[in-house]
Amino acid sequence: MAKATLTISSKNYSSWSLRGWLLCKLAGLEFEEKALSIDDPGTRAELLLLSPSFKVPALTHGDITVWDTLAIAEYLQEVIPGASLLPEDLAARTHCRAVSGEMHSGFANLRSALPMNLKSHFPGFKVWAGAQADIDHVIGIWRTCLDTYGGPYLFGAKLTIADAMFAPVCTRFKTYDVKLDRKCQAYANRILNLPQMQEWTKAALAEPEELEELDVEF
Amino acid sequence: MAKATLTISSKNYSSWSLRGWLLCKLAGLEFEEKALSIDDPGTRAELLLLSPSFKVPALTHGDITVWDTLAIAEYLQEVIPGASLLPEDLAARTHCRAVSGEMHSGFANLRSALPMNLKSHFPGFKVWAGAQADIDHVIGIWRTCLDTYGGPYLFGAKLTIADAMFAPVCTRFKTYDVKLDRKCQAYANRILNLPQMQEWTKAALAEPEELEELDVEF
Repeated sequence: MAKATLTISSKNYSSWSLRGWLLCKLAGLEFEEKALSIDDPGTRAELLLLSPSFKVPALTHGDITVWDTLAIAEYLQEVIPGASLLPEDLAARTHCRAVSGEMHSGFANLRSALPMNLKSHFPGFKVWAGAQADIDHVIGIWRTCLDTYGGPYLFGAKLTIADAMFAPVCTRFKTYDVKLDRKCQAYANRILNLPQMQEWTKAALAEPEELEELDVEF
Repeated sequence: MAKATLTISSKNYSSWSLRGWLLCKLAGLEFEEKALSIDDPGTRAELLLLSPSFKVPALTHGDITVWDTLAIAEYLQEVIPGASLLPEDLAARTHCRAVSGEMHSGFANLRSALPMNLKSHFPGFKVWAGAQADIDHVIGIWRTCLDTYGGPYLFGAKLTIADAMFAPVCTRFKTYDVKLDRKCQAYANRILNLPQMQEWTKAALAEPEELEELDVEF
């Protein structure tokens, strides 16, 4: 099998790194990790802008380098034998891509107001109205998926791209003490308890680096 | 063939509507258009936030409704016979998805500082540094693609998802008088002169509605 290296940044702060890493794990890819230091000015700026980019996550697999989380997902689905990152049914697969795309490009308020930070916990965190609208929209997506496909994951029995896209949101809901209905809370817990998520979280908590706030415009 | 309807909003302002519409045209789908009025508060907010969403573009095709531009693109590629929205070569296809993904989720400064507005022209428009960095990044992507695949389009002889994703950027560069090198300017002109783009632009210029600025936080 071709040698694979995934470039990521902070495991505590970088939600895009988590998505890419989780997709590689779920696809069954064996890969090495290469971590960009958050002391690098470019990396810091990206983390603080909370936006994905060509820097992380980036997967080098043999002769191919692919960046952007959704492109990595489609690539893995195409080339890794046995990867089941997308539902087999056309309608479900299309729905999976639609909600994954929404998470990929939207939810700016959620990103800026509730940035991923696995080391922290803010009981009773006050969510402003713009971010609450994003939270409500996430919950709407989850409920529709869990009701339509019967769980335990968003698109049924198998973890898909959509679960990877929303995994950082599960950590944010925990960090910022966001109250969920029973079904959505059970889903979030299920994701947080995945062995891959436990492995990631353990490494995040052990990270020595801390990100100081910078004055970044959104 | 199943009946297809594409929901879009303003042809003058909605870059996401343009992307979805152009993808359907490029795929050879026959479809009806359904326009959401920009007087609708939800539509206005989305246009002003410049973010894609589940509202527009949305394609209903037979029993399936798909939203999000990239999900629409992957859907069309899967179901429309003869659609060639993605390069045939794996490495090129992966590259195409990566730069399309970048445009899908990034370039926030470009979006907010140079919103699509086909009716307007601002000679000598002063671009602030943050947006200039986005412009430079777009140009870097175009140059790499045009050099690697030989043009005339980003991934060679056929128009792909990437060209549709960057088509609104071509209009912005014209509207805001952004200076480009010869190769990139020729590419932008080529896109703007596509018959589909001419059709879209004509309809945009004929749109009676005008969007008043609202005080929206980014």
